[in-house]
Amino acid sequence: MRAVDIIVKKRDGAELTAAEIKFFIGGFTDGSIPDYQATAWAMAIYFQGMTDAEATALTLAMLRSGQQLDPHVDFPPGAVVVDKHSTGGVGDKTSLALAPLVASLGLPVGKLSGRGLGFSGGTIDKLESIAGFTVQLSNEAFVRQLHDVGLVIGSQTAELAPADGKLYALRDVSGTVPVLPLIASSIMSKKLASGADAIVLDVKVGHGAFMKTQADARHLARLMVEIGRNAGRRMSAVISAMDEPLGRAVGNALELKEAMAALQGSGPSDFEQLVVTLAAQMLRLGGLGSDEQILQNQAREQLRNGQAWEKFRQFIAAQGGDLRQIDDPELLPSARLIEPIRAPAAGWLAEIRADAVGLAVVELGGGRQKKGDSIDYAVGIVLEAKVGDRVEAGQPLCWVHANDPRRLAEAQAQVLEACRISIEPVVAPPLVYEIIS
Amino acid sequence: MRAVDIIVKKRDGAELTAAEIKFFIGGFTDGSIPDYQATAWAMAIYFQGMTDAEATALTLAMLRSGQQLDPHVDFPPGAVVVDKHSTGGVGDKTSLALAPLVASLGLPVGKLSGRGLGFSGGTIDKLESIAGFTVQLSNEAFVRQLHDVGLVIGSQTAELAPADGKLYALRDVSGTVPVLPLIASSIMSKKLASGADAIVLDVKVGHGAFMKTQADARHLARLMVEIGRNAGRRMSAVISAMDEPLGRAVGNALELKEAMAALQGSGPSDFEQLVVTLAAQMLRLGGLGSDEQILQNQAREQLRNGQAWEKFRQFIAAQGGDLRQIDDPELLPSARLIEPIRAPAAGWLAEIRADAVGLAVVELGGGRQKKGDSIDYAVGIVLEAKVGDRVEAGQPLCWVHANDPRRLAEAQAQVLEACRISIEPVVAPPLVYEIIS
Repeated sequence: MRAVDIIVKKRDGAELTAAEIKFFIGGFTDGSIPDYQATAWAMAIYFQGMTDAEATALTLAMLRSGQQLDPHVDFPPGAVVVDKHSTGGVGDKTSLALAPLVASLGLPVGKLSGRGLGFSGGTIDKLESIAGFTVQLSNEAFVRQLHDVGLVIGSQTAELAPADGKLYALRDVSGTVPVLPLIASSIMSKKLASGADAIVLDVKVGHGAFMKTQADARHLARLMVEIGRNAGRRMSAVISAMDEPLGRAVGNALELKEAMAALQGSGPSDFEQLVVTLAAQMLRLGGLGSDEQILQNQAREQLRNGQAWEKFRQFIAAQGGDLRQIDDPELLPSARLIEPIRAPAAGWLAEIRADAVGLAVVELGGGRQKKGDSIDYAVGIVLEAKVGDRVEAGQPLCWVHANDPRRLAEAQAQVLEACRISIEPVVAPPLVYEIIS
Repeated sequence: MRAVDIIVKKRDGAELTAAEIKFFIGGFTDGSIPDYQATAWAMAIYFQGMTDAEATALTLAMLRSGQQLDPHVDFPPGAVVVDKHSTGGVGDKTSLALAPLVASLGLPVGKLSGRGLGFSGGTIDKLESIAGFTVQLSNEAFVRQLHDVGLVIGSQTAELAPADGKLYALRDVSGTVPVLPLIASSIMSKKLASGADAIVLDVKVGHGAFMKTQADARHLARLMVEIGRNAGRRMSAVISAMDEPLGRAVGNALELKEAMAALQGSGPSDFEQLVVTLAAQMLRLGGLGSDEQILQNQAREQLRNGQAWEKFRQFIAAQGGDLRQIDDPELLPSARLIEPIRAPAAGWLAEIRADAVGLAVVELGGGRQKKGDSIDYAVGIVLEAKVGDRVEAGQPLCWVHANDPRRLAEAQAQVLEACRISIEPVVAPPLVYEIIS
């Protein structure tokens, strides 16, 4: 087999065999297939696409390029471990509330997460707002905590699907990022590597998401569900809106506080709705019921009866987090300057673009322009109004939390630019578009 | 400017500016743009194509990546230097007869040639069949001989359009060889670098050529003519058949002998026809007339009056070749074994595939499988019958010249496989399809 023949075959629109894909990814991982062949191949895939079978083979080849976790070792046979993945959005603190909720109902949740990059935040960064909290877990520690607490969230390591890490770095500089089968296999290779039996995907669509159209989001969701099923996992995908930020808080400690409020029954309604929707899917896949309405009600109840909150506290303690900060959120990092962005006119809030809010938070220091940048956990933006709300002139649309006056002023200008106020009433758009199960 | 943005722009089907193409080729040449971006870009061009303006900008950027020759230094103002380029074929010894012919009419011919690779032979290799002949000429020596003899053929050096050499090596292993604008700019950047004022292209089409259809050949020819004109050169292109080998001889010394016969008025008729057709184009572009029929007659006359032959002898002597071998071709390299391939049945020769004959000669040792292979000048194949000829069962279709009995037998089998004999009369196909001027 020769790499160039595999490139030409894809270029000419033919379907690659699993053996060809395995050969290519294997050679790419060990360096015998050079980067310049990988990028030409990726560009050919951009134009010719991949079948579900090819995307599955690619995912499995990348999965097998590195370590795989087996989270079942301490569980009785038949135990189901669930995981959840979001394609990334602004204000997306969902895992922080969802994972304890599901775990509190007896379903083990083992999750490996990434850090934020660009306008899209990362679960790991939000958790690291808590003093002492660690995400660097050995495989043994991960599996042990999963068994003992029923909930663990660790950081993805370079040993997990290393072919994906290497390919992603190249895609980023070769114009081959927006290629559905490559996106799907990149996500799914890492998800499969964590060994969960059931995976619920939250595929976001809109200004603040990677997928800009519902059609693309549906395509990606279906492909990932298909790949996961071909790999023997139980799968479900929720397609949710990401035009305005999710909930009200954007920024690491601010989002953590909002998730903590939700775990105690007082989160923003859109955020709670998404958490409950995803929870019902996880519970269903975990075998805890089949009626989604009943499962949603059960999930909502867990946010009110203190059990989800208690599971969250156990989880934070297990990973070394300072419980005083949890019990008194005032002790979490907070910004020195808090200033409003005021509505320039009366009317109804018609738009507050999530991408602009996310970028403003990056520029406040709350996110990364590039990998390895350090971040300021305290800064961020908290929405006072959501799309559809009536606003009066001069009323705060949101609050900017900053540690630098110049950056604060810039964020105010930037976010104001991203808001649109209508003189006609605006109906709040739906949050959940579709569930693929 | 960022390389990735240029890749994305081309991927999305937009036209690149000359500045963007210059930036990309400049960065690629100096190494600041890595190979993995160049291959992704080339693959995007495969799918999205290039406009004539883009292909011209690419050609000029590659041209300017290295040295350029000025062949005019010793000539009076207004002198026209002509060059000719073939896209490569089997038995294509055209330059060996054409260049002396044109030079003998007073038009300076300065040509930089490449070596053969794969089934397609190279002018340089054929000339090196002659003892002592050198193609390694300094720029000064090239220009001086062009002035003194009116004819010089040197070897392309790595200093000429180095971006092209680097890009071609990558295209070869990344599935981006068959991309018309890349082919056209690769050829034209090297042609323009040799500084000729007028360039005649022989674009071959058929089994033994890189272009397999007349439509592709016409496309390539038009594009190269356009690029050359945009760069201020006089251009003409002949589209000629390459389904069966050109003339009768295939193999270095054998082709040299055939070209020498043609220079003395006794070459195969198809070969003479092509030489005369191309000569008329060169003479026309060189300002020696405008009536193509008159120019063709004049060219044919030069092959009979001894003047083309005399120019050839001067040229060989000027580059150190042994004139005794020229005056007595028996002294040129010759093979130990000469065996026929016999017609298996009576009929009319309907096909003798040029690519198969070319590959058979490579396997006899007369060509290169890969760059740097040494070659055996003596071996080759000489056709006894051409397509359209009546053949009797057992009659030699061609003769294999070999130095190894095993290879001889293999070549016999291979070439026989490439012949088709029809029981119905076959009309010899046209040699020249079209002239683009």
